Amino acid sequence: MVIKEKMNISDIDLAGKYLPGNDEISIEKEVQIPENIINKFEEISGKENVCHTNDERANHAYGKSYPELLKLRLSKIENPPDLVIYPKSTDEVVEIVNICNTENIAIIPFGGGSSVTDALEAPKGGISLNLTRHMNKVLKVSEINSSVKVQAGMYGPDFEKYLNTFSSGYTCGHFPQSFEFSTVGGWIAARGAGTFSTAYGKIEEMVLALKVVSPAGSIETKDYPADAEAWDLNHIFIGSEGVLGVIVEATLKIRKYQANNAAYAAFLFKDFESAVNSMRQTMQAGYGKPHLFRISDPEETDVAFKMKGFDGTFSDSFLKLKGYKPGKRTLMFVVIEGDKDYAKFIKNKIKKTAKKNSGFFIGGKPTKKWLEQRYSSAYARDPLMDLGIITDTLETTATWENLLPLWEEMRAYLKNRPLTTVMVHLSHVYENGANLYITFLSPMKRGDELDDYYQLHKGLVDTIVKNKGSLSHHHGIGRALSPWMKQQYNETELGLYQAIKNKLDPNGIMNPGNMLGLG
Amino acid sequence: MVIKEKMNISDIDLAGKYLPGNDEISIEKEVQIPENIINKFEEISGKENVCHTNDERANHAYGKSYPELLKLRLSKIENPPDLVIYPKSTDEVVEIVNICNTENIAIIPFGGGSSVTDALEAPKGGISLNLTRHMNKVLKVSEINSSVKVQAGMYGPDFEKYLNTFSSGYTCGHFPQSFEFSTVGGWIAARGAGTFSTAYGKIEEMVLALKVVSPAGSIETKDYPADAEAWDLNHIFIGSEGVLGVIVEATLKIRKYQANNAAYAAFLFKDFESAVNSMRQTMQAGYGKPHLFRISDPEETDVAFKMKGFDGTFSDSFLKLKGYKPGKRTLMFVVIEGDKDYAKFIKNKIKKTAKKNSGFFIGGKPTKKWLEQRYSSAYARDPLMDLGIITDTLETTATWENLLPLWEEMRAYLKNRPLTTVMVHLSHVYENGANLYITFLSPMKRGDELDDYYQLHKGLVDTIVKNKGSLSHHHGIGRALSPWMKQQYNETELGLYQAIKNKLDPNGIMNPGNMLGLG
Repeated sequence: MVIKEKMNISDIDLAGKYLPGNDEISIEKEVQIPENIINKFEEISGKENVCHTNDERANHAYGKSYPELLKLRLSKIENPPDLVIYPKSTDEVVEIVNICNTENIAIIPFGGGSSVTDALEAPKGGISLNLTRHMNKVLKVSEINSSVKVQAGMYGPDFEKYLNTFSSGYTCGHFPQSFEFSTVGGWIAARGAGTFSTAYGKIEEMVLALKVVSPAGSIETKDYPADAEAWDLNHIFIGSEGVLGVIVEATLKIRKYQANNAAYAAFLFKDFESAVNSMRQTMQAGYGKPHLFRISDPEETDVAFKMKGFDGTFSDSFLKLKGYKPGKRTLMFVVIEGDKDYAKFIKNKIKKTAKKNSGFFIGGKPTKKWLEQRYSSAYARDPLMDLGIITDTLETTATWENLLPLWEEMRAYLKNRPLTTVMVHLSHVYENGANLYITFLSPMKRGDELDDYYQLHKGLVDTIVKNKGSLSHHHGIGRALSPWMKQQYNETELGLYQAIKNKLDPNGIMNPGNMLGLG
Repeated sequence: MVIKEKMNISDIDLAGKYLPGNDEISIEKEVQIPENIINKFEEISGKENVCHTNDERANHAYGKSYPELLKLRLSKIENPPDLVIYPKSTDEVVEIVNICNTENIAIIPFGGGSSVTDALEAPKGGISLNLTRHMNKVLKVSEINSSVKVQAGMYGPDFEKYLNTFSSGYTCGHFPQSFEFSTVGGWIAARGAGTFSTAYGKIEEMVLALKVVSPAGSIETKDYPADAEAWDLNHIFIGSEGVLGVIVEATLKIRKYQANNAAYAAFLFKDFESAVNSMRQTMQAGYGKPHLFRISDPEETDVAFKMKGFDGTFSDSFLKLKGYKPGKRTLMFVVIEGDKDYAKFIKNKIKKTAKKNSGFFIGGKPTKKWLEQRYSSAYARDPLMDLGIITDTLETTATWENLLPLWEEMRAYLKNRPLTTVMVHLSHVYENGANLYITFLSPMKRGDELDDYYQLHKGLVDTIVKNKGSLSHHHGIGRALSPWMKQQYNETELGLYQAIKNKLDPNGIMNPGNMLGLG
């Protein structure tokens, strides 16, 4: 209803369903891999794990980016893989990679399929290698080392449940928005971030060791607690988006699961700048960090207030009187985990910092409520598309010095388009800056949906880059952002990426065309 | 005197000076670089910054490893550089690197010269490129971003003093043992660690961005607060030990300088295992981390007690009665910086954890005293060598699960050698393990000093590797450990290192033979 009001959607629009897509999936491209090779794969992984039905191919043809969903609605499946293989072991992955390397067959490592950067298409056909069916187990928990060795195909919820119930209880602490539909391998390949990243770190700070199968051979790093053995190979595979090899195992940090100790807080600030200042001061104070640290900008705050039925209540009137006005007021959510006293200590410190910056403490409940429904927003996308509404997200990261101008310019660019709702939050915070996560809703240009979207998207990324934002904070690059990589990196830097690619994947079979358009 | 007693050194030994070395430095190798090329360098950097005196060449011929010091005493200068150049700018570095690349002249980037891994020799002659004379300035402090951009040739004390006195005062928080004689560039090239690393992190956790001049061109990364733009190039240059290019600038994190807030604590544990357990429990408790966290093993504790005249005092008798016995008791030092309340909070938490593990709180003074003299131990090396005593250090890192057996095996190996003092401490601590830093003193084998040392060293490294320690935690690999890299990494992994090297330094001019023996 909030969206309906904001975007002038008439009741007529709500009656129909725009671009429902075909019920029957048709794939025009025939399987290109010769039968004798398919037989080889069947011998390795078993007939039941080598699939080329339309359903399997279509399910692995796309991730979950807006244009991919749109293409599905337009019944376009342009670049499906030829086969989907579900290997049972690292040895099988090695055999499959070797055959593909010899036969020049492309491989697209497929995790939970929740990529939003067009990273999973198969323009050269080939194999979508899906580790989720078999290679989805915890191999070892070391309580003394506070670490876990896990296969890359394990889904987030299974992994977390396993850890929560192991011995006295552990957590990985990595909860990306895609948690339900993402895998350990995908987290690493995309260099992802979870809701609690501000204290636990992004995935690159959780990885202790990796095992990767590349066409040139296998790489296995060790789980030393920091070392100085030349440069760190882990960081070449974290963020490699399938172009270098298949991540098959990872050793990650774990922490004691102490959910009952958590402290929750929510604040309302008079304006966005005050909230950002408060957040920055907390990160730079030297008194420790919260796990969840999040600001919704004024428009996102207003939408949240309306959706929760807060608008017009007694509390709302009170807050307005106190100077917390719609259009300017800004919500902050905080959660601290770990030791009980620590959680309390940090909460009090953050309260003091917030108070100095007009932060009005509104209890812990709003944060708890937000946490309970945090995965639900992604589910709104399809119903909104049914109404003919573009609903997309983009994210970037910037130093504090560049953050506010970047926020303003991004909003200005999107607001230039009529009837566009733009909601921004900061949700992963560092001493030197934070990410900006943009959700925008805008009417589709009917009949020209795809090109119109691409133009809108291009302008937004150009705006980000011009205002010193990174191309991504945790979604990755994929095919969607690869043209900008070529602008952002010089010849030597791009050459270095390509040299690493060439060494590990000399025939260019790993996710061809992804990320840098690496050959 | 403690050492004298422990090692059976007679008064006669103390009278003479063993292997004093020659007063006059003689370098046999003549300068190989043709005069017309030298003239070019002089045009670029000025005559006064292009040096080939014996003194300059000898001063840049070695780092500070034990065998290097020994070679100097034996008047062996085997592999000096031909020239020492002090460039004035990045542009000059680019010009020099380009000429060397064309003319096939080796370049050894030289920081403070405090390497202890034989990383600075010039087996192919060439240029020792020393940035400390001119490229030693802070370029920009950003208070809002909590970061500093600095030239790589700046020495630790100058850098820290600059930050301490800038505006309201900042600190970098990186204090390696070599602090006085090391540079920002050296810290990064060696992947170093400082005394306060447990909270502030090793140098790899402080680097936000880098500028590197390689023969293939320049690389300049951006200071985004985390991103997901493909894989992270910073981590290829952190730990690159001069083999890829010349690190010319870095953007590092800084923190508020709040020295007066610091909390100090020292504890005595009944045995080593209890101290290690206490340390591990603190790191895994989720209540925050101390900045300095250090355990001296029983032998190091005993030496410290004797040197401080603590042995035989009333307190000593009291502690012995309480079960804290020489040969078993173990010292722990703790410092927490940052916010005052935070420091107090963490100190109390650590006290509680220590108490559970037999940790007896002995006040803050021992830690303060230790801090005051922390850089002095390195100065004991030369006087000990005067007495004919090998004095060397080696360091490694291991997960908690491997730490105690590794400690025992290393000690057993060294103790196998008569009259050998072995002192070990843990000084850089992580959730999943810690480093082990070994100092050992042993009589030289007179007349066969070098080979005897190499044999001893080889056996120790073999013991470390066999017991699952890393080759280094923060000294780096250099030439001293490069043979073990080839054992520890498989062909694909070594090939990947070499491919990166080949891309950036196709003619193999950067620190040839260092680290992996990379061509």
